[in-house]
Amino acid sequence: MPELVETIYEFQQKSSEKAIELKVGVLTSLGDILMNQYVTYFQKNKNILITVYSMEKNELIHSLNSGKIDIASSFLSDDETLENFEKVLFRMDKMVYYAPNITEICNTISIKTILNFPLVKYPPDNFMNKMIDQYFNIAGKVPVVAAQLPSPYAIIQYCKKNTAGALIAERLLNTLGDSYEHGYCNIDPSYTMKAFLLYKKENPKYRAIKLFIDYVVKLNKNNS
Amino acid sequence: MPELVETIYEFQQKSSEKAIELKVGVLTSLGDILMNQYVTYFQKNKNILITVYSMEKNELIHSLNSGKIDIASSFLSDDETLENFEKVLFRMDKMVYYAPNITEICNTISIKTILNFPLVKYPPDNFMNKMIDQYFNIAGKVPVVAAQLPSPYAIIQYCKKNTAGALIAERLLNTLGDSYEHGYCNIDPSYTMKAFLLYKKENPKYRAIKLFIDYVVKLNKNNS
Repeated sequence: MPELVETIYEFQQKSSEKAIELKVGVLTSLGDILMNQYVTYFQKNKNILITVYSMEKNELIHSLNSGKIDIASSFLSDDETLENFEKVLFRMDKMVYYAPNITEICNTISIKTILNFPLVKYPPDNFMNKMIDQYFNIAGKVPVVAAQLPSPYAIIQYCKKNTAGALIAERLLNTLGDSYEHGYCNIDPSYTMKAFLLYKKENPKYRAIKLFIDYVVKLNKNNS
Repeated sequence: MPELVETIYEFQQKSSEKAIELKVGVLTSLGDILMNQYVTYFQKNKNILITVYSMEKNELIHSLNSGKIDIASSFLSDDETLENFEKVLFRMDKMVYYAPNITEICNTISIKTILNFPLVKYPPDNFMNKMIDQYFNIAGKVPVVAAQLPSPYAIIQYCKKNTAGALIAERLLNTLGDSYEHGYCNIDPSYTMKAFLLYKKENPKYRAIKLFIDYVVKLNKNNS
């Protein structure tokens, strides 16, 4: 039955010559701009229109359940179980310490040194804060909070103007462009976060979803 | 009675020497990074910790009603009535056409020329799209949609890499820094959007809210 629905859906799409629309929700801290390359590729090559949403963790799960989005792109913690969804690991994201007013020319900064400076975090109850707290658990100390801001872009901008630092995915800084490629260093101990794609198998757009997932996995394998 | 609650709240804050926390929600398309300057100022000078949230229009209104945030910073359309809240106009935001791959050196671009190129918009049902549609109503045409992205940062980044344009507040581009100061031009006819601060008078943090509002209004008067 799901296959029939899928076939009818695809037939309707083809007969109307309308692009299939995939709605992709991205975890805000993962960075919605990382989706841009896929938007361009799928529109040009596959007649798939990707609409991107930026959301917090709970909203992503809720929207995937309700059908507001077809795919979620999110970091997940190791102990997280999500029984309702298919789950594909597509990338290990290296976290770096972004602090252009602190780091100067440095290759690696220790967790102990990071703790000497205020850290920019997300608002309370944010999933990303829990992951950041988990990192500082190693040192048994919590950093002084410089500010609580809602997006990686606001956090990065804050660090550009103030003596403060933040843990940011290196890939996001590199995607933002030349002016963000300096001012950060590796952290010791290192910290990687697992980025997943989540979706429901019983979705009439399953074939388009699969096409998207396979492409994202392939592209990240090549670039990692 | 509200005054008593307010006094007790302030006394508790003072006696514990804890900073007052103001929760400010910003319309995503207005740009959360614009709040950074206030975060720094109030933390340094007034012992007020500002936590920033980025939200869509409906969520802003809902969060202000439920008390999740104390202040909302948002564009409003002219016909919008919000009876539950106090409303302060703090800025007229000039919209410009950002399209670094199209505009080259140009001072002003006509709505007719803009319509020749695909436009990057927000996802459907987004408040900002309605405002953008309102602008193109003047020409009686709708632009081809290049992509539907959730934040001004993703939109700007898309325009940097593709032959597409977007309507963005000039102030946001200038705040993002040097590398965004080129690649946009004025639009003809011009389009300004009204940016407001919304709050509830019956909030125990009213004095801190008032301090914040007055400062934002003053700073924008000086810079406009």
